[in-house]
Amino acid sequence: MDFETLIRDVPDFPRPGILFKDITPLLGHGAGFAAAIRHMAEPWRAAGIEVVAGIEARGFILGAALARELGAGFVPIRKPGKLPGRTLGADYALEYGSDRLEVHADAVASGTRVLLVDDVLATGGTLAASRRLVEGVGADLAGAMVLIELAALRGRERWSDTVPLRALLRY
Amino acid sequence: MDFETLIRDVPDFPRPGILFKDITPLLGHGAGFAAAIRHMAEPWRAAGIEVVAGIEARGFILGAALARELGAGFVPIRKPGKLPGRTLGADYALEYGSDRLEVHADAVASGTRVLLVDDVLATGGTLAASRRLVEGVGADLAGAMVLIELAALRGRERWSDTVPLRALLRY
Repeated sequence: MDFETLIRDVPDFPRPGILFKDITPLLGHGAGFAAAIRHMAEPWRAAGIEVVAGIEARGFILGAALARELGAGFVPIRKPGKLPGRTLGADYALEYGSDRLEVHADAVASGTRVLLVDDVLATGGTLAASRRLVEGVGADLAGAMVLIELAALRGRERWSDTVPLRALLRY
Repeated sequence: MDFETLIRDVPDFPRPGILFKDITPLLGHGAGFAAAIRHMAEPWRAAGIEVVAGIEARGFILGAALARELGAGFVPIRKPGKLPGRTLGADYALEYGSDRLEVHADAVASGTRVLLVDDVLATGGTLAASRRLVEGVGADLAGAMVLIELAALRGRERWSDTVPLRALLRY
């Protein structure tokens, strides 16, 4: 499956100067979506994943599908104020300003094997903050999986080598 | 599987007087999540579903998992400004004010069999707006599936009977 043909470049989105990788053609293609999820699951089949944690919002799509593929549960990592229970939060820097993610404090039992999932690894701030959250609520982080790594933005440098970080596609 | 024991009532969320049905314990429970998705898929296995359209944000989680279960593609129905391509939009009334959802204008080929998915059917405004969107971009709407129907809010009355609307759980 040539995934690249199902990913559309959108210039100047969401801001001028940014070339956005639009994965919606891949998601909408039944065989393409199935193959992408199978390939994303492959490195983790023997990792004992009990829960997939997906990052709002595109990480929900890939993460929930991966959870089913791996027979795991799903935990949402959300924007502030969206989760109804007691939460743990993590702030992270953006190009301009900052943002925050939250997870339910009781989202996983201590020691649960968790795989962190998002669509794109760019500068790595979102994934690093999400890692602090899942480790903060007591998970045993098995690793992180993204569909796309934008290698030029060097997000991988913000991720310590003690836990594997994998990408299906690299640009 | 007794799904109700995995759904948590949270009083006064997101606003005073609202009893929120928190599905995160069900999502996070591997066997519970798998069983819920299998049961949600069951009525649609012979319906020729080619694409599942999920409504941001919890509809992404259930919809993407259902898409994999049915071997279908996934199309996101999103909050305004989130989709990078040309969109079709639909406004809908809330208790106070209004909100808007969007779908990519080229999300599906004309006549594609689509299943609409969300977590909760409450007053029905979100689902009705989403239906206008998927039909507006040329889909052949097979039906809608929600995890939970809050029957007292009578959202079903805003849904015409020509297309089936099903719920796994009713309160």
